[in-house]
Amino acid sequence: MQLEQENSVIKKNSQLDNRAILLVKCPDKPGIVSVLSTFLYKHNANIIESSQYSSDPENGNFFIRLEFHCENLQAKSADMEEEFVHIAKDYNMTYDFYYRNERQRTAVYVSKELHCLLELLWEWQNGDLDTDIVVVISNHEDARSIVESYGIPFHYIPANKDIRKEVEAQQIQLMEDYNVDLLILARYMQILTPEFVGHFENRIINIHHSFLPAFIGARPYDRAHKRGVKLIGATSHYVTNDLDEGPIIEQDVERVDHRDDVATLKKIGSRIERRVLARAVKWHLENRVIVEGNKTIVFH
Amino acid sequence: MQLEQENSVIKKNSQLDNRAILLVKCPDKPGIVSVLSTFLYKHNANIIESSQYSSDPENGNFFIRLEFHCENLQAKSADMEEEFVHIAKDYNMTYDFYYRNERQRTAVYVSKELHCLLELLWEWQNGDLDTDIVVVISNHEDARSIVESYGIPFHYIPANKDIRKEVEAQQIQLMEDYNVDLLILARYMQILTPEFVGHFENRIINIHHSFLPAFIGARPYDRAHKRGVKLIGATSHYVTNDLDEGPIIEQDVERVDHRDDVATLKKIGSRIERRVLARAVKWHLENRVIVEGNKTIVFH
Amino acid sequence: MQLEQENSVIKKNSQLDNRAILLVKCPDKPGIVSVLSTFLYKHNANIIESSQYSSDPENGNFFIRLEFHCENLQAKSADMEEEFVHIAKDYNMTYDFYYRNERQRTAVYVSKELHCLLELLWEWQNGDLDTDIVVVISNHEDARSIVESYGIPFHYIPANKDIRKEVEAQQIQLMEDYNVDLLILARYMQILTPEFVGHFENRIINIHHSFLPAFIGARPYDRAHKRGVKLIGATSHYVTNDLDEGPIIEQDVERVDHRDDVATLKKIGSRIERRVLARAVKWHLENRVIVEGNKTIVFH
Amino acid sequence: MQLEQENSVIKKNSQLDNRAILLVKCPDKPGIVSVLSTFLYKHNANIIESSQYSSDPENGNFFIRLEFHCENLQAKSADMEEEFVHIAKDYNMTYDFYYRNERQRTAVYVSKELHCLLELLWEWQNGDLDTDIVVVISNHEDARSIVESYGIPFHYIPANKDIRKEVEAQQIQLMEDYNVDLLILARYMQILTPEFVGHFENRIINIHHSFLPAFIGARPYDRAHKRGVKLIGATSHYVTNDLDEGPIIEQDVERVDHRDDVATLKKIGSRIERRVLARAVKWHLENRVIVEGNKTIVFH
Repeated sequence: MQLEQENSVIKKNSQLDNRAILLVKCPDKPGIVSVLSTFLYKHNANIIESSQYSSDPENGNFFIRLEFHCENLQAKSADMEEEFVHIAKDYNMTYDFYYRNERQRTAVYVSKELHCLLELLWEWQNGDLDTDIVVVISNHEDARSIVESYGIPFHYIPANKDIRKEVEAQQIQLMEDYNVDLLILARYMQILTPEFVGHFENRIINIHHSFLPAFIGARPYDRAHKRGVKLIGATSHYVTNDLDEGPIIEQDVERVDHRDDVATLKKIGSRIERRVLARAVKWHLENRVIVEGNKTIVFH
Repeated sequence: MQLEQENSVIKKNSQLDNRAILLVKCPDKPGIVSVLSTFLYKHNANIIESSQYSSDPENGNFFIRLEFHCENLQAKSADMEEEFVHIAKDYNMTYDFYYRNERQRTAVYVSKELHCLLELLWEWQNGDLDTDIVVVISNHEDARSIVESYGIPFHYIPANKDIRKEVEAQQIQLMEDYNVDLLILARYMQILTPEFVGHFENRIINIHHSFLPAFIGARPYDRAHKRGVKLIGATSHYVTNDLDEGPIIEQDVERVDHRDDVATLKKIGSRIERRVLARAVKWHLENRVIVEGNKTIVFH
Repeated sequence: MQLEQENSVIKKNSQLDNRAILLVKCPDKPGIVSVLSTFLYKHNANIIESSQYSSDPENGNFFIRLEFHCENLQAKSADMEEEFVHIAKDYNMTYDFYYRNERQRTAVYVSKELHCLLELLWEWQNGDLDTDIVVVISNHEDARSIVESYGIPFHYIPANKDIRKEVEAQQIQLMEDYNVDLLILARYMQILTPEFVGHFENRIINIHHSFLPAFIGARPYDRAHKRGVKLIGATSHYVTNDLDEGPIIEQDVERVDHRDDVATLKKIGSRIERRVLARAVKWHLENRVIVEGNKTIVFH
Repeated sequence: MQLEQENSVIKKNSQLDNRAILLVKCPDKPGIVSVLSTFLYKHNANIIESSQYSSDPENGNFFIRLEFHCENLQAKSADMEEEFVHIAKDYNMTYDFYYRNERQRTAVYVSKELHCLLELLWEWQNGDLDTDIVVVISNHEDARSIVESYGIPFHYIPANKDIRKEVEAQQIQLMEDYNVDLLILARYMQILTPEFVGHFENRIINIHHSFLPAFIGARPYDRAHKRGVKLIGATSHYVTNDLDEGPIIEQDVERVDHRDDVATLKKIGSRIERRVLARAVKWHLENRVIVEGNKTIVFH
């Protein structure tokens, strides 16, 4: 079963029909930029944006993100991809073509704190998140009315550690039904099992309410208050099986002082969380984030 | 023996002769501000700056920092302090009078990395640190020429964990000889024993090259690089017997990205360390910092 | 006619019933803090927060904001205010008592750009803006549905420079009908006449989309782009008869670079505008802002 | 006459012998990256870092900075440059090759405020500014001893508007004698004539002590204080004949408040000036800055 979102409020931008991104990773050696840019040139593709990184010019990996424009891209892409197979083989490349007119499909998970969800909905409505938000999942009913007012399906799935297995089975089924590419944990306060995480490698983005690796785990604002830090922060990262240890995409902080109690830290923190998660999601959707080991390369 | 610094390059500001700070801590209850401000008014002291904080209006402590100006303060201070004893007793106050014309005497400890020492010397030369830097101690010779060029005595004391006891005995003796009030660890890469720390409670300020409590201990930039954080930081704190766990005075961060190797993190970090330590020391010298439990109240 | 907002979604916090703020300005001289704190103490009022500022201890003005808690404040406030008249006379004080349970009534003016309005509504709904938003005025219909969904009356008043007089007469009448204390121009793109401004001295807060005094007037983002600045900003200020020259309450900036076109500057800028206006309004509502000449004192 | 600096304290890094930068500007069209990267590949040059920018893909200019490594570069560079002439002609390119082992020669101009000079000397001594500082010029004697302690020639040239012509003639002669590539005005408080500026187009970097375009001209901190801004800043820009209107390279700001008098603003500002000028100079020396019209493209 494939559910369709009939009433998406966000129109696709037809200017993006002829735009694509080529992400490449391969062992570093001379000539890679030459072969890639010559390939694109031969197909009359104009490079709009190019970012590259060498982990170590001697013996490391080379990463490049090429965003290009090409007339009649949809008609030509199959040929281009077929030809690219040979280049990729010669240079031992891992790669992906992403077409800007093929929007990623996103599911948002939320519990009772709605500020991160609201920020995502707002950015999405403004056209700043190039995605279809196809479903929102929650273990509480709080978000239902706001989510449904945007025409987005809302699924209430109560959750706790005793029924984790059944809950996750139901969630995985929903992800399949909605054909979801990206899962965003927008303050979803449930631990996920390795089975669940394994289904969506590098496709689950979490927001943690501390500047990791400080205050891993529960109640970071309480612990920040107890420790007397002068800055609090938030961290957006991909979810792995090590709690709060996945590759960091983005972090930010704000200044606090001795007068700020835990409630105030939460308020200040909620503003940090909003913008950190929104940036991380935006960069992921624009295919600017590459996971390498337990770190990210982010091509701004 | 009391050594005197003959050639202090920093003149005292005679405008400060009639200025003092009264720091008070006591159980919170109504009337404290009234009694303190009335006390000062009776002595013809004008309040220049006032900052206060209640940890909990119901059942907590009250803290106040009053900076005041009073003609002929030196002649009157003994009487004022004598009278204040009674107020303090009535309200169960812990308190101190600090006279701005009595400069604190500072010792700086340093190893091979000199950027924090240089920043302190610079700020001090500009008149921004109201202290006499009376001695610099190091386990290396690197800093000697720059320190001596400022007319400050430099003591080279080799140190390692096998001779820690003797080294610290020698250092404690020097602190007494120079009559030191404040010890600044400006990237001094030696662990101090509880005996040493116990001699100087809340009088040793350290700069740690991470945003604590992340990356406690050795090699924080290497570990920050390995973890792939997007911000690096520095923390200035009072030294206690728990490594890097003392009360935090100030922290700051800067943005980094995947292109920054460990050497670059150190360079960026050194700029953060410079300003974080300089701010913490300045606030301490202005008696703006109160230690309460394992946290600080900083009255900016 | 006084319109009442029946369906305010924001409940008053009963804990605030016994809380008030005393704002005082007077010529600086010794004893002011003593007399004020003794006055409060005699009335069994406990000072919760105190901030003061002397423009010049020799010959300037003294400003103080005292927030206090007092049991049965509503029963006692008339007596307190009556007694205070004498103190104020002795010290030549200008002053105001603000009771936290008497919420200020706010009108928001908006045109087609809704991000600042939305941020205010959001903060208000979270309980972070202690006010009643009693009416929204716009020269466009865009904001109607969102405003009415919050149960707030929305008035559409078309405006242009040819009908400015009539429009303003209608707006002034509405401000009286709704008994408005504070007007917020949340990207309301109309010039106001001196007559209008004169009705609401230091009670109209505007958000200007540049770091004033740079880019006064129209199209600041276009001009920032043309000038090639590396930071863009926003400024919230009280409206006076000099365009964008009124007392500044708050400013902030973000980093931009050569790749950012005008549309991107507007997007980045809208996030700065949101937070700068929200902070300025919050501080005004908490009576933390004092206008002195063409500048503000903000007691954080 | 060519003066040589015998005692340069900063050693060249031999690892840079085989490194160069190619900066290109040309009308945008497909195939540019292909031809450039293929050119480098043919010469066995490996691209270390690549940054590009299109002012407008339809009809604008294309800019690219390619940093590359090439064995035996010094032996091969003449051939490479000769061959490149043809490519440049085909694509209508303006371009430059910069060899990392050929250090730019820098002159620093300073008046009485030394903080910016000291920051530059410090960064230079740390090896963070890849240049030879060959001379310091001042209209005061204050900087002599510190400059000469670094082994750098110091020239005292009194200046005022009545003798501007003679002073500048002498300065231009010195710039020729020392074969200077870059002039840094590190708080040099003299207006330069169009004749002087014309000799060094896009080669004079100034630090202005405000966030331009606010507070162009004299006494910006006084005017910032008078206006009551909540942020102060500094701007580094190339000098043109329009005072403080040249292309901006870098800007930064810090927060201030009503308590900060003009002296405090200057102190806070001096820290901003130090880092803003140091960054701008560093980027210029690394050939990361391209002037386009009255704006800069900065390839970080």
